[in-house]
Amino acid sequence: MYNISGESTMVNYPNGKKSTWAHSTASAGGRGMALEKDINKSNDSYLSQDIAVIHKKPTPVTIVKVDYPNRAAAKITEAYFKIPSTTDYNGIYKGRYIDFEAKECASRTSFPLKSIHLHQIKHLDSVIRHGGIAFVIVRFVEYDETWYVEASRMIEFYSTASRHSIPYDWFRKNGILIPASYIRPVDYLKIVDRLYFSKGGTTSDGS
Amino acid sequence: MYNISGESTMVNYPNGKKSTWAHSTASAGGRGMALEKDINKSNDSYLSQDIAVIHKKPTPVTIVKVDYPNRAAAKITEAYFKIPSTTDYNGIYKGRYIDFEAKECASRTSFPLKSIHLHQIKHLDSVIRHGGIAFVIVRFVEYDETWYVEASRMIEFYSTASRHSIPYDWFRKNGILIPASYIRPVDYLKIVDRLYFSKGGTTSDGS
Repeated sequence: MYNISGESTMVNYPNGKKSTWAHSTASAGGRGMALEKDINKSNDSYLSQDIAVIHKKPTPVTIVKVDYPNRAAAKITEAYFKIPSTTDYNGIYKGRYIDFEAKECASRTSFPLKSIHLHQIKHLDSVIRHGGIAFVIVRFVEYDETWYVEASRMIEFYSTASRHSIPYDWFRKNGILIPASYIRPVDYLKIVDRLYFSKGGTTSDGS
Repeated sequence: MYNISGESTMVNYPNGKKSTWAHSTASAGGRGMALEKDINKSNDSYLSQDIAVIHKKPTPVTIVKVDYPNRAAAKITEAYFKIPSTTDYNGIYKGRYIDFEAKECASRTSFPLKSIHLHQIKHLDSVIRHGGIAFVIVRFVEYDETWYVEASRMIEFYSTASRHSIPYDWFRKNGILIPASYIRPVDYLKIVDRLYFSKGGTTSDGS
């Protein structure tokens, strides 16, 4: 259906990490680990170079039981993953509030709408109304492509959609490919610069 | 040392809640529950009235072990509270990035510096440098007083302090008492309005 040429040799999709993901602060279900890692690394670079202050929020869990094996440490022995009420990432860049959600997509043809919860879409809509910069980062793992999509376009699709997924072609039309470097594997502020700060001012790499 | 008159009859200090706090997404150690609840309620009101989008971040935990009793639900069976790398609350108000930390104080005479981690102080400092609005909310439980303190003043105290705590009198000189209402028990945006939006524009209650 969508003319995509070339076979992917991508092997780092987190399926292979199922047995180890629980050892880190993974997102619920362990999905999207590679993208999360790449964004965190980019955010670390932004932070250490004093370019922006953007962090991933902790994974929300409902804590049911806590043991106190000793005075110093509390051990949580029963907890459950919770549906997040907001997006995963937010912070500040050049005085502007930044807010986004990031998702990996395993399909070659489309991005399932259910990957982003409706209240997350509503949250992004609120952020826009209050003057923030809101977007979504979607990585098509099979193509090793990471797309920046303005939240407003995503919201429009969600509110008018008659289908359950967004075709890959839609991203080619509505998204912007995010450049990668070793130190900033998902250098999304380059896109924010282009869209919001292109006239005057400095860019995220100081140029 | 500090001329404080009157005996407190406050009984809702979270010590009495020790056995139940683990049933909610409490902050590490279960301290500060009442203040947290009050701020969350205020934030809910700001959100539902479309005044601001400010949320508490989830309590950060390090997840060590996860069981899969059935296909649907993952059960976390071993996890530990983690020192937060940022503050507890952030969001957007009138186009400005908002960031703050909130702490209850059990002492009648002083606020221990160690209540706020050094990297949280550094985080607040970064937020200011990048153009955000940063502050700290401190509740002196015994007086039932909730203070708004500009992060810049707090940072100044931390960087010049020769003592291990901030005297209560310092808050009387440097802080602003936060008004309370039933629907907004910690109506801190009233103070933000006064400090940042007093000339023109509307206030948090639409007046």
